[in-house]
Amino acid sequence: MNKEVLVQVHKRVKPYIHRTPVLTSELINEMVQANVFFKCENFQKMGAFKMRGATNAILSLTNEERSKGVITHSSGNFAQALSLAAKKIGVKAYIVMPKNAPQVKKNAVKTYEGIIIECDSSPVAREEMAAKVQQETNATFIHPSNDDEVIYGQGTAAIELFEDYPDLDYVFSPVGGGGLIAGSALAATYFSKHCKVIGGEPKNADDAYRSLLSGNIEFNEQTNTIADGLRTNLGDRNFPIIKKYVEKIVRVEEEDIIDAMKIIWERMKIIIEPSSAVAFAALLKNKRDYKNKNIGIIISGGNVDVENLPF
Amino acid sequence: MNKEVLVQVHKRVKPYIHRTPVLTSELINEMVQANVFFKCENFQKMGAFKMRGATNAILSLTNEERSKGVITHSSGNFAQALSLAAKKIGVKAYIVMPKNAPQVKKNAVKTYEGIIIECDSSPVAREEMAAKVQQETNATFIHPSNDDEVIYGQGTAAIELFEDYPDLDYVFSPVGGGGLIAGSALAATYFSKHCKVIGGEPKNADDAYRSLLSGNIEFNEQTNTIADGLRTNLGDRNFPIIKKYVEKIVRVEEEDIIDAMKIIWERMKIIIEPSSAVAFAALLKNKRDYKNKNIGIIISGGNVDVENLPF
Repeated sequence: MNKEVLVQVHKRVKPYIHRTPVLTSELINEMVQANVFFKCENFQKMGAFKMRGATNAILSLTNEERSKGVITHSSGNFAQALSLAAKKIGVKAYIVMPKNAPQVKKNAVKTYEGIIIECDSSPVAREEMAAKVQQETNATFIHPSNDDEVIYGQGTAAIELFEDYPDLDYVFSPVGGGGLIAGSALAATYFSKHCKVIGGEPKNADDAYRSLLSGNIEFNEQTNTIADGLRTNLGDRNFPIIKKYVEKIVRVEEEDIIDAMKIIWERMKIIIEPSSAVAFAALLKNKRDYKNKNIGIIISGGNVDVENLPF
Repeated sequence: MNKEVLVQVHKRVKPYIHRTPVLTSELINEMVQANVFFKCENFQKMGAFKMRGATNAILSLTNEERSKGVITHSSGNFAQALSLAAKKIGVKAYIVMPKNAPQVKKNAVKTYEGIIIECDSSPVAREEMAAKVQQETNATFIHPSNDDEVIYGQGTAAIELFEDYPDLDYVFSPVGGGGLIAGSALAATYFSKHCKVIGGEPKNADDAYRSLLSGNIEFNEQTNTIADGLRTNLGDRNFPIIKKYVEKIVRVEEEDIIDAMKIIWERMKIIIEPSSAVAFAALLKNKRDYKNKNIGIIISGGNVDVENLPF
């Protein structure tokens, strides 16, 4: 890994993604007593940063591999991201989803022409079905977060943030499966002057916090959090990067996530999903430590059911 | 009135307002089969275009007048706008509000240091109280929409839109008290090549539609619309401009307003108030007439109670 790898990744994905805006709010700056820059991946294609990693993973395949398609198991944003990226690049995407996944999520994948294969809802059933489809089709399996090319792709959001604001002292990223924060940490290492990367994680799904403490990948025993994008676990490709380059992980309570989400909705007039609010909640929790600093926040996505809000 | 007046107005208000972004959405363009450009005044200071007109009205006063303050009656966005503009310019703002106005609206005015004077909730009580305070303070009364300087100030949103996109064929604006659409129509007349201005109005508060039909100012007999910013009536300063320069007014049903609002929330990930959705609802209703055209939409504001949504 070196800077040039990431430069090439960014160059490669650029034609397929939006360069999302960086928004600021005087009211939030006053509230935090710092200069906060929100990288708005909620405005990314399909509504989340996952489009970056999915696109890069597909573009890294050979023509031979592309001709056989790609496969993943996800019922969330990565299912949509892989479907849309595959459609734009001209590749088939097989999406293994639990039978009981919400119809709205299935419809979103169908809109992007992903081929849905239903399975039972257990993790084992999901992996078995993915293996079966992979065997039948020879499609390449792409993990939503524990894949080098996915990690590098996710890092391009932070690269753009550093291009726009080279003097950031800290970047806060949510931590779920670990792809976004690992990519952001690599970006900070190679593209910033001195920026430290801090993770925000729900206390109710704090595998990354405990993994950094123990030095080994720890697992979530429960994932009872509103931040549905962060219920997943770190993996062996992203954990070494997180261990090496991430400053620390801050855990936040469910009510802090909802409060942070509401502040961004009301003050910034943008729609973000609960997972996105976790990074800002982590900053709010410890705001005294960041007085007058320049702080980037990765707003990871905006796919939320507006008919079913926590406030 | 001539172009130079508006150029000077824009120059004068610029230091006090945001130049708001213009957003686009591929999904919405596909849905409408046209190129739609959303001028996002929901990102304006205090969350609505009203900041522009309030600022211009205060800046047009003499130093003598400014020293005595300004006064308006409003329980909506103009109350906040006049308070914030007055605060920034260093002028006192007296805001006459009904006793039973929601506490959240009173708090917003207080945040901006507006001086609230409560009155009974009838229009007569409101005007009597405003007259009384005006007499005591010699403050200048500024009407939320029926005031030349307010109209010119509101027009600066469309001026910026034409600066960014000179080839617009149509601009859709919501119609309430008439200040925004009158200002937008003046801007189109002096700053666009050939752009026509179309108003969107709730069928349940269709005074402007009926006024254009009859040629005289008609009044709302009821205002039972979710678009709370559009319950007000045209006035004698803005109606002649609307009559002369606005192409037509399109009326929309309540359910169309809610649908349009939801589409913008879900597809664009921005928070807009129901009044803002009315202009887009008007475009959606007649989209066949605008195929492949370049269309601006003024998103008037984003001040909505996220705990009390229509969906």
